[in-house]
This record gives sequence, C-alpha cells and structure tokens, in this order.
Amino acid sequence: MANSMYETCIQACSNCALVCEMCASACLREEDVKMMARCIELDRDCAAMCAMAAVLMTRDSQLAKELCGLCAKICRACGEECAKHQMDHCQECAKTCMSCAEECERMAA
Amino acid sequence: MANSMYETCIQACSNCALVCEMCASACLREEDVKMMARCIELDRDCAAMCAMAAVLMTRDSQLAKELCGLCAKICRACGEECAKHQMDHCQECAKTCMSCAEECERMAA
Amino acid sequence: MANSMYETCIQACSNCALVCEMCASACLREEDVKMMARCIELDRDCAAMCAMAAVLMTRDSQLAKELCGLCAKICRACGEECAKHQMDHCQECAKTCMSCAEECERMAA
Amino acid sequence: MANSMYETCIQACSNCALVCEMCASACLREEDVKMMARCIELDRDCAAMCAMAAVLMTRDSQLAKELCGLCAKICRACGEECAKHQMDHCQECAKTCMSCAEECERMAA
Repeated sequence: MANSMYETCIQACSNCALVCEMCASACLREEDVKMMARCIELDRDCAAMCAMAAVLMTRDSQLAKELCGLCAKICRACGEECAKHQMDHCQECAKTCMSCAEECERMAA
Repeated sequence: MANSMYETCIQACSNCALVCEMCASACLREEDVKMMARCIELDRDCAAMCAMAAVLMTRDSQLAKELCGLCAKICRACGEECAKHQMDHCQECAKTCMSCAEECERMAA
Repeated sequence: MANSMYETCIQACSNCALVCEMCASACLREEDVKMMARCIELDRDCAAMCAMAAVLMTRDSQLAKELCGLCAKICRACGEECAKHQMDHCQECAKTCMSCAEECERMAA
Repeated sequence: MANSMYETCIQACSNCALVCEMCASACLREEDVKMMARCIELDRDCAAMCAMAAVLMTRDSQLAKELCGLCAKICRACGEECAKHQMDHCQECAKTCMSCAEECERMAA
C-alpha cells in the first residue's frame, strides 16, 4: 500500500492510533471512569502521535524518524498504563502499543 | 482490531487516507507538477476526510454516518481525478478511493 | 491571516477546537469523572470536527460548506452538554461552542 | 482562551498551521507549480506539526515540550523555503513560521 521503506512501521502506527481511539472511548463507558482517567489521557496523546507518525512516514518527511522517536515514548507510556487494567480493550491496547513502540524505535534508530 | 460494526469501512478509510497522502507526495515529485495540481488538492482533502471518518467510526461517534456520506463524495471526486493520470501512484489511488467510496456509501445509507 | 472570505468562521472553529481539547483534559482531572464522561466524548468529536472545518475553509475546499453544516451540529450538542456543568472550563466551552455553531450555520447556509 | 502557561505558543502554532495550509493551497494555484513543490511539501509538514503542537500544549501533554522542539525545526525549514518566493502568501508564511519557531524554541528550552 504505502511507502514501502517504512511499510511495517506505518501499519503499526496506523493501527495503534485506531486501537487507542477505541480504548479511550471504551474507557469513557466503564463503570469506574475515574480509574481510567490516566489511561484516556495517554490514549488521546498516543492516538494523535501515531496517526501523525504514519502520515509523516507515508510522505517520506524529513521529520519522520524524529517523530517516530517521540512516538515510541508515548506508546511505551500508554502501553504501561493500559497493562494495569484488566478490560479487554486495555489489554489489547497495551499489546498494540508495545509492539508499535518497538517498530518506532527501529525506525528512529 | 477496531470497532467491529464498522470494521471494513474503518480499514478502507484508514488505508485510503494513507494512499492519498502518498499520492500527493508522489505528485509533488513528478516532472510536470502543474498537471497534478488538482490531484494534489483532492488528495489532501480526501486524506483528511478519510482519516477523520476512520477515527469517528472507531469512537462510535454520533457523526460517523454523516461524515461517511461526505467522505464518499470526496473519495469519488479524488478517484475520478486520479484515474485521469497514468502514474502508478494515481492509478492505485483511484482504485483505493473508489472502493473506499463504496464502503462509505454503505455506511452512510 | 487566513482565507478572508471565511475569516470569522475559521477563527471561531480554530478557537473552539482548542477550547474543547482543554475542556476534555480538564474534565478528566475532575473529582467526579463519570459525571463528565459524555462531555469528554462530545469535546473530542467537536475538537476534531472544528479543527478540520478550519483547515478545509483555509484551503477553500469544495467540502468546506457541508463540513461546516456537520460541525454546527456537534458544536450545538457539545455546547448543550457543557452548559449542564458548573465548572469554568465547561461554561466557557458551552459559550464558545454555541457561538461557533452560529458561525458554522452561517457558512453552511 | 486556552491553557494559560502556553498561551502565546499555542496561538502562534495554531495560527501558523492555518497560514501554512493557506500557503500550500495558494502555491498549488500558482502558474509555475513546479517551482513551489518544495514549499508545498514543507507547508504540509509544518501545518501538521504546528496543529499537533497546539493541541498537545492545550492538553498539557507530557510530550508538549519535545514536540515543540521538533516543531521549531520544521518551522525554520518551512520559513526559509517560503522566504525564497516573492508571492505575498509565501512572504507572510515565512514571517509566521519564523516567529512560531521562536515561540516553540522558548517552549522547548
């Protein structure tokens, strides 16, 4: 599909952005929303960073690598927070974020 | 991965957004950029609309259906313009836009 | 600054997008987050729609008017929800959303 | 309006994002589009980075400072390219990018 040099990382970021959006929405519908507040906060930032990283790689932008470096950080932070919660959406999001972080770290190296 | 009710359409929009970004970038590197100006313009709008449609469906937003209706329009316009150009990136983008338009029309119905 | 034909509406949307982002973040830090869940949900969608409306008007996109029509709807929904809460961030967001809705309705007409 | 700690920088980024979008659209309508291709490319990336920096500051995100550091770089690159072209939209964009770069550098420090 997209820019072949970055293909795997683009797909990881594009997918992670949507998984984080979905996790944030699902967290907002949980019984105990307060417990999920930090998760929602990180989901929002992670979704925004991942979406932008995917776009910049697709454009072969000169900022792509550096943005992937930042993206890896927020993916790790979001993944660690999500991992603390037992809901399926958080557990799936944790795994997605962690594997996206690895792809982004590879890109940024 | 994401919200299962909209799964196919989310994937179509998410993919189409990136294909349009890539097509715009490739058009800007063509020898005759002037000929591609309209294509670039539509790629930019189509990329923005498709990315947002994917996000709103993932969130199960109350605006998702109506946005998909608008998204279908710009996908058709972009696909028709891309189809006029022989480069691989435009031909691929044309096909991607047209199939995304169909998914969005189904969603909007 | 930007496209003069749409100037007032672009500023209203651009401002409203940021006010909604700020309201969502402030809601997430409230004691009773559960009470704010619907507000956060609408803030997120309203922020995304307003940001995109501002961009499409600035580009003089063929979709600008129709998107402003949709944007007006989510601004009204978000403004009505925010108006129910007494916090300063919600009251300010309610006013900002309502006046943005009016600008968008004018544009869409 | 928004998060007061970052107020000036948020406004600079939010404004710069729209000025870059407008410059890109105006460049695409120039007689000699080829000469503007690099400008359009940088406008697109600068618009995306500035819009995201404004959002992350408004949210008081933990990534705000680092993203402002990256944003400053693309603002400088875009401002330098725009400064080479005599059209009003490029000259205005050059000035806007340079002053946004300064604000972002202050934030990132």
